[in-house]
This record gives sequence, structure tokens and C-alpha cells, in this order.
Amino acid sequence: MAGNENSYEGRQNHIRTLALPAIEVFENIYPDRDYNIHLNFPEFTAICPKTGLPDFGVVDLDYTPDKVCLELKSLKEYFLAFRSVGIFHENVVNRVLDDLIDVARMRSAKISVVYNARGGIVTTVSRSYNRA
Amino acid sequence: MAGNENSYEGRQNHIRTLALPAIEVFENIYPDRDYNIHLNFPEFTAICPKTGLPDFGVVDLDYTPDKVCLELKSLKEYFLAFRSVGIFHENVVNRVLDDLIDVARMRSAKISVVYNARGGIVTTVSRSYNRA
Amino acid sequence: MAGNENSYEGRQNHIRTLALPAIEVFENIYPDRDYNIHLNFPEFTAICPKTGLPDFGVVDLDYTPDKVCLELKSLKEYFLAFRSVGIFHENVVNRVLDDLIDVARMRSAKISVVYNARGGIVTTVSRSYNRA
Amino acid sequence: MAGNENSYEGRQNHIRTLALPAIEVFENIYPDRDYNIHLNFPEFTAICPKTGLPDFGVVDLDYTPDKVCLELKSLKEYFLAFRSVGIFHENVVNRVLDDLIDVARMRSAKISVVYNARGGIVTTVSRSYNRA
Amino acid sequence: MAGNENSYEGRQNHIRTLALPAIEVFENIYPDRDYNIHLNFPEFTAICPKTGLPDFGVVDLDYTPDKVCLELKSLKEYFLAFRSVGIFHENVVNRVLDDLIDVARMRSAKISVVYNARGGIVTTVSRSYNRA
Amino acid sequence: MAGNENSYEGRQNHIRTLALPAIEVFENIYPDRDYNIHLNFPEFTAICPKTGLPDFGVVDLDYTPDKVCLELKSLKEYFLAFRSVGIFHENVVNRVLDDLIDVARMRSAKISVVYNARGGIVTTVSRSYNRA
Amino acid sequence: MAGNENSYEGRQNHIRTLALPAIEVFENIYPDRDYNIHLNFPEFTAICPKTGLPDFGVVDLDYTPDKVCLELKSLKEYFLAFRSVGIFHENVVNRVLDDLIDVARMRSAKISVVYNARGGIVTTVSRSYNRA
Amino acid sequence: MAGNENSYEGRQNHIRTLALPAIEVFENIYPDRDYNIHLNFPEFTAICPKTGLPDFGVVDLDYTPDKVCLELKSLKEYFLAFRSVGIFHENVVNRVLDDLIDVARMRSAKISVVYNARGGIVTTVSRSYNRA
Amino acid sequence: MAGNENSYEGRQNHIRTLALPAIEVFENIYPDRDYNIHLNFPEFTAICPKTGLPDFGVVDLDYTPDKVCLELKSLKEYFLAFRSVGIFHENVVNRVLDDLIDVARMRSAKISVVYNARGGIVTTVSRSYNRA
Amino acid sequence: MAGNENSYEGRQNHIRTLALPAIEVFENIYPDRDYNIHLNFPEFTAICPKTGLPDFGVVDLDYTPDKVCLELKSLKEYFLAFRSVGIFHENVVNRVLDDLIDVARMRSAKISVVYNARGGIVTTVSRSYNRA
Repeated sequence: MAGNENSYEGRQNHIRTLALPAIEVFENIYPDRDYNIHLNFPEFTAICPKTGLPDFGVVDLDYTPDKVCLELKSLKEYFLAFRSVGIFHENVVNRVLDDLIDVARMRSAKISVVYNARGGIVTTVSRSYNRA
Repeated sequence: MAGNENSYEGRQNHIRTLALPAIEVFENIYPDRDYNIHLNFPEFTAICPKTGLPDFGVVDLDYTPDKVCLELKSLKEYFLAFRSVGIFHENVVNRVLDDLIDVARMRSAKISVVYNARGGIVTTVSRSYNRA
Repeated sequence: MAGNENSYEGRQNHIRTLALPAIEVFENIYPDRDYNIHLNFPEFTAICPKTGLPDFGVVDLDYTPDKVCLELKSLKEYFLAFRSVGIFHENVVNRVLDDLIDVARMRSAKISVVYNARGGIVTTVSRSYNRA
Repeated sequence: MAGNENSYEGRQNHIRTLALPAIEVFENIYPDRDYNIHLNFPEFTAICPKTGLPDFGVVDLDYTPDKVCLELKSLKEYFLAFRSVGIFHENVVNRVLDDLIDVARMRSAKISVVYNARGGIVTTVSRSYNRA
Repeated sequence: MAGNENSYEGRQNHIRTLALPAIEVFENIYPDRDYNIHLNFPEFTAICPKTGLPDFGVVDLDYTPDKVCLELKSLKEYFLAFRSVGIFHENVVNRVLDDLIDVARMRSAKISVVYNARGGIVTTVSRSYNRA
Repeated sequence: MAGNENSYEGRQNHIRTLALPAIEVFENIYPDRDYNIHLNFPEFTAICPKTGLPDFGVVDLDYTPDKVCLELKSLKEYFLAFRSVGIFHENVVNRVLDDLIDVARMRSAKISVVYNARGGIVTTVSRSYNRA
Repeated sequence: MAGNENSYEGRQNHIRTLALPAIEVFENIYPDRDYNIHLNFPEFTAICPKTGLPDFGVVDLDYTPDKVCLELKSLKEYFLAFRSVGIFHENVVNRVLDDLIDVARMRSAKISVVYNARGGIVTTVSRSYNRA
Repeated sequence: MAGNENSYEGRQNHIRTLALPAIEVFENIYPDRDYNIHLNFPEFTAICPKTGLPDFGVVDLDYTPDKVCLELKSLKEYFLAFRSVGIFHENVVNRVLDDLIDVARMRSAKISVVYNARGGIVTTVSRSYNRA
Repeated sequence: MAGNENSYEGRQNHIRTLALPAIEVFENIYPDRDYNIHLNFPEFTAICPKTGLPDFGVVDLDYTPDKVCLELKSLKEYFLAFRSVGIFHENVVNRVLDDLIDVARMRSAKISVVYNARGGIVTTVSRSYNRA
Repeated sequence: MAGNENSYEGRQNHIRTLALPAIEVFENIYPDRDYNIHLNFPEFTAICPKTGLPDFGVVDLDYTPDKVCLELKSLKEYFLAFRSVGIFHENVVNRVLDDLIDVARMRSAKISVVYNARGGIVTTVSRSYNRA
């Protein structure tokens, strides 16, 4: 296992606290209904921390709102902020879902990101959340 | 969270009571059978309340009728009435399903609307219903 | 709800007893095995009772035979008989499945009919059956 | 129900005992693992007992091996032997799966055969097996 | 059953211990989250032990990491090492998953390899793993 | 060559003069422009003169109008009239194009009909026309 | 041929002069190059003059600019203006291309509009232009 | 170049004169029109002369009839006769087109056969004919 | 026509001389052959000069080399440089092809860029070049 | 332009004379017919001279034979020989077509190779040949 302190994985611990634009929400006028919102954002791009080259991916979000819904314009700006961030695939998925749960307290949520092939390998990372 | 009283989400509270054409029904001659009717309406269009520009979507309905079935001609006119209504994606799905349940008292129902991309984001909203 | 006695739905009550060609069966030589037979009949056509114009659909049948299997040639003739029958989508599905159960006493069965769009709406009707 | 003794279904009772080439097996070197092998054989052809004309189908096998795996070359020869056999769709599926279970004693297995359309009808026959 | 000691299946027992390049891992910075990583490697090639000719396949891996994630560059080199190895389809899947579990101790994992047709037969081998 | 006077091909000579509904036209308000109109009619059905069974096909028309355009409602009724006509594939294409040229005197036209498979053979018949 | 003065085709002569929003253009900074611009506008909707019901279509434009290019925002507004216009399929294509040529004097241009099926018929209208 | 007299290519010279079932024709009742007939026969099978194993292919014929058209039932029987013939891909195409020209004297014709992969290679053989 | 000096089209004149990374070439060792090289670069991104938001597109290049071929690594870096450049769709295509011709003096070349939809419009810009 | 004598392009000049397995041919028994043979070989793999990593591609050959046809088994072995050869995409296409012309003296030929993406770029190289 690669473990020296200069390794790239070490340099990613700051991802959990990296400053990113705020995601706004708006009032759900049907909080008395359980329903699902699916958002597909096919133009995600970030920087690979190892090579400095851009990565490209397709983000799918799926959630059951509680009191608020995600406001799309601020969500788009939040995703655009990754354009110059060096971040690994796994961390994008976890950081984004943590942020969404923080701001919208949804009843349940799923996220997946399918990345364009690098080195002949296509990577998809996904995670589900159910409010206890 | 955006919350001032002039915000667009505030202006959408009237959606729950907005007047829309009546949906007619006809007698189900097989009420002693549990069966499923799926309706796909690919030409839904409404107005975005924020931009005033048209939105386009594909509506899928799925239900198990009880005593009556939805009459297609009046259902189509009901959907056409949204052509000049300013309404958010989430509210279309909830208002339509509430209206359908009201008029047809079906055993169960599902609705989903897939909207054409806006700002590079494809939104799908869906909801399920099971009569208690 | 449309309810006058001249309404088309009233005229459809005879569908449950309308004379149709007999469906033949043949002996299942593997009655000691549970297995599935799926039949896809893409050339179903009947007449719309409201407009008098032809409707077109794709029929899918799926069943687990018991003592007998459905004989395809007579089944095809049974479907062809609908070519001049005025019948609503929902009733086709229910009448056909009732007839199949009557003649073949299968362990379980499913039917779906996907109709070509009329007035911009695609209708699919389906029903499942499990022998008690 | 067609039942006279000259009917074709009567002539198919011999299918359960018809001589066919042996299917060979080889030792599974990972018998301590539960894993799945899927085989797709898109070039199955037999003879229709009623018309004497060739039928064509696609065979899919899926199984969890126990002590042995199916040897592909002998399996292919086994399938090729049907090229001159008059046999109904339902019987192919049942006879083949019975033979495979006999020789390989797999933990579980599935088979399906999708036949090319005859008389405008596409037939698929399938069966599953789980060792008690 | 083919069983003489010169048979090819005998020659494959060494596969369980064959030397292959080490797969490296890196620290999972979200070990407190259950999430899924899917890797698609469409350029797998090995040698058929019977014919000496190359086989080609598509490898799909799917796992929920625990403390570490699989490092892609070393994983790719691990797969490249099969380019000159004579190995049967079934054994590739079992050997690879055993190696991955050894090095990454993931919470769960799945692997499937879809091989290009040989002799008109397409073979897919797959296996799932759940840590007890 | 089959040539006795009772052969089915003999019985088709009347097709060139068979009475069919009139196709209406309307004034082309852009006769000073060369442009193309393509019509796709996926629900064509007629009767096979040999078997008496229905045939199904997809009609594609393509034409450059001169002074008039084809009126769709009457064109649809014209096609519906074939529902009970016994006519071979080749003759449908020739009769229809002759009728269209007669009524609309278009600058150029093409027709093709793709028929559903019969006896395992898919037939497409097509013809082009350019006004001298 | 339908020809009475109340017929719908008569009511369409005003289409050639109907007021529509202006389409803006911008300077082509590569007028010394022959190149092609293709625009796909999948959300065209207008009103059927016969039924008063909405039609839906996909517009494809293709042109080689000369001194100016079409400005997309004003082009979009131009298309949106058809939302409440009663106009036949053929006339949309001819009016739009005439307007584009007027404003942009392109070296060549093509337009096609594929309309959603009405009465089971899919209509596509297209026209090409080459500057003399 | 393989050239000894026992080579398989030598054994194929008889293909040009091999006895095959007659293809029947019927009178073209539109000989005054140039039109095209396309026939797709997806169930061609013959025997590989080298291995004795079956080959499978899809035949496409395309022709402009003169005085006669090909009769489909006899054409199908003609193709079925190849089921037990050992013949190379190239020779099928040439022999069939020669036979069709002989019997139907069409104005022009094309044939192609796409064969299922053997040894990982997909072979398509095609030929065109125009009557001088 | 939009023409004020602050308009965005005015601000794009510098595009023809904007500094970009050099594209390297390597010797074509088959200059005595006319052959074609097609490069597909699906990850192009630049900035929209009007909105400041990223645009995304797929670049296709096609050329017949003369004495040199385009070196892929430097070509990729050249494309990556657009990531922070504000440039309109039309200008990307023209600037890139001019640069490629300058450096590689190919016998012929084509370029097309398909951009992701903006405002519901998909734009494709393309240009061909043939050395005189 | 990269031009130093150690550059990789210099190291590729030997490709034109590199020893490769002989491609065998067999007698064309229809040399009096112009017909086409298309071969699709989807499992081509060679080594990238710069990185030492494997490349993968799909080869399509298309030719009109004269006196001889390409023998598939030897052609396959010829392609397999590239498995360990370091060779650039452009050179594969040119070397292979030169070899095929040498051995088969066909009337015309085409070759294309579509390579799997490397560094996010898909490369296709193609060349046509017509005997003078």
C-alpha cells in the first residue's frame, strides 16, 4: 500500500473541508407528499490530482425532498466550482452528497458519477443515503 | 435558503388550488380484475415561472383502476391547459396526481415527468400512490 | 363522470360475452416442470368504438402451463377475429386473459398490449394472473 | 383440445428419451466458490415437427457449477445434433435443461430459447432450476 | 467426464498460486460512508490454454471499499500481466476476485467478465462476494 | 415460370383499375419554391391474395409539390381502404404512386413500403418518379 | 381538389406576410472561409389551423454564412413566436427559410422540420437554398 | 499461394454446376414501371467445406424486375437447399446471383450475405449486376 | 443587425491572433500513400464569451497527411488550452483548422465540433479544406 | 517539428520491411465476376512504441478479388503477429494494405482501423487502393 506522507492520497484529506459555493434551497410546497426528484448534470469536470489534467463525468442525483428542494441555479454554480479543483473520483461523490444532505435534509438521496475513461478504465462511483 | 416573500417559491402556493379543466372518467367494466393502464403523453409543455420561457416534458401515468377509468380526450385537454401556466416541475407532478386521485379514486397510481434540459440539467420528478 | 345511457362505455358491456373463435390447446409433455412460455404478437388490430378507425397494438403473453399449452395457429386466428371488432383497449386485455385462463388453466399468466399513439397518447394495458 | 392419437403432440412423447450426443464436463477448480457461468449460443436450429421447415433460435444458459463445468466443444456438438431433429420449442428447453442437470449436477441453472418469428409470433421458452 | 492427467483442466490447478503483479491500494478518506466503486476495463486479453490463441473480454468490477481503495494504475498493470497467461475464463474471474479481496478487504465486491465469442458461443463468468 | 390462367398473378390484373377512395389536394401557397414533403404512415394493412391473411407494412412517401399538396385526411382514408383488399406487395407500391401522380402532378416523388416478415422473408418495394 | 373559399388552405395566404419577431445577426469574423453552421431546435411548437390543437416538431437548420451569422437568442425568440400561430407544416418551412435568407444572405442553407405524428402520420418538410 | 490439387478450393469448382431447386417467377403486372424489390432472408445456413460445421448468414437481395418477379415460396425453398451443401461464402453469393439472373432476367440486381463470425472474423460478400 | 462597438462579436476579432500552444508534428513514413487519419476528441471545453459559463463539445478532425502527421500529445495540450478561453463556436472551428493547416500542410482536412445544447439549441460547426 | 534522430518516428522506418507471417491465398473460382469481400477483424492488438502499452483496434478490409482470394486462417495469423510489435496506428494501416496488395493483386481494396481511445482521443486510420 502506498503510504508515504507525500503520496497524493494524503493530499486529499482537505477535501472534506474545502470551501465550495453555497447550494441554495427553496420551500417544498408539497411536503405532505413523498415524491422523487432526479437531476442529471452531464457536464461535470474537475482536475485529476495526479496528472493535473481535466476529468469529465456525468452526475446523477436522486432525492426525496422534505421541507426544501435544491435550487438548480446555485447547484449548477456549485458543480462549476469543481472545474479548477484537484479531486479524486471517490471524493467528489462523498463530498457532494455530504453537502447536499447538510443543506436540504432530504428524506433519502442517491448520487452517482460516471467518469470518462482514463487509461482505458471507466470509473463510476455512487452512494445512497436514507435519513434515519 | 431563499426566503423573502417576493421569491418565486412563494408565488407558487396558489398551484394547489389553480382552476384547471375537469378530467372525465368512464365506467370500468372489469372492476373485478386488478389490471394496469399506462399512459404516455410526450407533448407536455408549460411555462417556467422564473424565465417566462416554455418548458417541455414527457408525462408517464400508470394506474390500477377501481370503478372508473380516465377518459383520454378530457385528460388530454387537461394537460393542454398547462400550455400557458407558469408552474415549477415539482408542482406539476404533485398537482396532477392529486387531481387524478380525486376524480378516479384508483387503487394505485404513479406519475413521472421527464423535462428537457435547462441550463444543462435534465430534471425528472415522480411520485407513487397506493390507496390505503 | 360521463354516464348517459348512450355513452360508448355502456355499449361495451357485451364485450364480456362476445362470440370469438375457440383457442385450441395441446398436451404439455413436461407437466412435471415449471417453465415459462412467452408469446409476442406484434400485429394486433381492432376497431376504435368511438371513431370507427383501426387501432394497432403489440400483444405480449407470458404463462406457466399446467396440463396443456396454447396452440399457436388457433391463437393467431383468435387474435385475427378482433380485426373487425369495436373494442376499447382495456377490454381487449381483460377479455383475452379471461379466455386464455378458461381454456388453458395455466398456473400463472401475464398479458400486456401496447397500442400505437392516438391523439399523441401511447396506452399500454396489462394484467397478471396467479392460480390460487 | 386437440387429442386424436395421430396429432403431432402425441408424436413428441419420445423427445424425453431421444438419443443425443453426450455433453462432457471438466473439473471445477474453484468448487469452494459460488459463481455463475452464462453461455449464449445464437445459432440454434431444429426442425418444426408440423411443417418440416427449419426453426432458428438463440439459447441462453446460466448456471452455478458444483464439482464440474460444462465443456463447450461437446456442448456445441450436442446443440448441433438438433439440426435434423423435429422438436417443438417447449420440448427443446425442457429436454436440454434435464440433460444438463443430469450431467453437471449444478447448484442452479436457467435456460431460455428465443425463437425467430413464425406466423408473425415470436416465442420464448424458459425454465429455472435450483438444486434442493 | 474428461479426466486423464494430461487434460487441460489438470494443467490449470496452478492458477490459484500463479505469480502476478501486486495490486496497490490507497487510503479511503471516507471509510465512514458506504459507497460503491465500479470499474470497467474493456481491454482484457489472455491466452486460451487449449488453442494458444488470444481471448478477449470486458471486465467489470464493483465494490464497496472499507479502509482502502484499489489503485487504478497498479490494477491496470495487474490485468496487463494476463496478456501472456494461458488461463480459462472461469479461472480468471475466481483468481482476480480472490486477489482483490486479499489486498483490499472490501465490504462487498462483484466481478464479471464477458468474453468475445469462440466457436459461436459467448461466455460470461461472474461472482459476488460479501464480507461475513 | 408459373403461368396457368388460374394462377394468383393472373387475378391481380384488375389492381390497376380497382376503385379506391379519392385523394384530395389543397393549394400549395409556395409553388415558387422547390421543397420536399415526407409522409410516414406506419399502419398500412392489406390482405394477402394467396392466404387471405392480413399483411402489415410501413409506407414512406416523399414528394416535391407543384401546384397542390396532398391532403392528409383523405390520404389516410385512401390507405385505410386497403384493409380489406387482396393485393400483392409490388402492386400496392405501383398503384399508390400512379394514383398520387394522377391527382397531385408533383415534380418528383418516391414511395417505399416495408412489409413485416412472412415465411421469414422481409420484403421492401420502392419506386421513384421524376416529372419529365 | 378542395377549393371553396372557406377552406383552410385559403386562410393560410397571409402566412407569407405575417408579422414575426426580427432575427438578429452578428459579423462573421471568418468571411474568407467557407464553413457550415448546423442548428438543431428540438422544441418547436405551433397551432394546427384545422383543429386548434398544438403541433410539435424538431427544426434543423444548416447554412454557410457570408458576412453575418444568425444570432441564437433572437432566433430562439423568433421560433417561440410560433407558439400561438395557426400554421400548416409546409408553410412553417417556407416562411422560416425565406426570413433567414432575407436577414442573413447566406451562401447556402437547408431547413427541415420533423413533426410529431398526427392521425398516425409523421410529416417531415424540408427545403434547400443556394445563392445564385 | 495454396495450390495443390487436393486443396479445398479445388473441390469447390463443382459449385458452378451443382443441382439446386428451381426458382419460380410470376408475371410483373407493372413492367412499364422501373421499381425496386428488396428481399431480406435472415435465416441462411450452409456447411463450411473445411470444418463440416454449419455457417449462418443473412441474405439481402435487391432487384428491378423486368417481365417477371421472383416467387417467394420457391425462392425460400431454393435457399433452404443450402442447409446441407458444403460451400464457401464467396461462392454462395456468385452462384445465387447467377441463378437469379438466369431465371428472372431482371434489369439490375444486388446481393449481399453477411456471415456470422468464424475465428473472430465477420465476412460479408456482395455483388452487383446491371443488364447491358 | 447588432453593431455597436461594445458588442461581443467585436470583442472576438483577436481570436485570429490569440496565442495558443504549438502543435507538434512527426514525419509521415508513408508520404507516397494517400491515406486518411480521423481524430475524435470528445472532451473539448471553452468559455462562452457572453455568459462566462463553460461550453462543451466534441471535436472531429479528418485529414490526409503530406510530409508530416499531427502529434497527438501536443494536439491534446493545444485543445486543453481552450479551457479558459472565451470564444464563440464558429471561431473555434476556423481558428483550429487554420492552425492545423499552418503546421501540417496536409493534402486535405475537415473539422467539425458538435456543441452541447444551450438554450435548447444544439450547434454544430464544420469546415473542409483541400490544398490547391 | 520533432526531428532529432532518437525520436520515436525515426525508430519506425523499419516497419516497411519488418518480417511478418505470409498471407496465403486461394483460387477465385468466379474471376469473371466483379464482387466484393468485406472482412471485419475486431480483435487487433499491437504495442504502442512510445509507452510500451498495448493498443486495441478493429480492422475492416474490403476488396474486389482478381485471380485469388485472401485465405482467412493465414490472414488471422498475420494479424496475431502484431500482438508483440511496437507500431504506430498510421503504419499498421499502410503496412497491412501494402502486404495485401502484394500477395493478392486485388482489383481494388480499402482498409480502416478504429483504435480504442488513448488520452481521450479516438483515432481511425484508413486508405483506399484502385489497381491502375
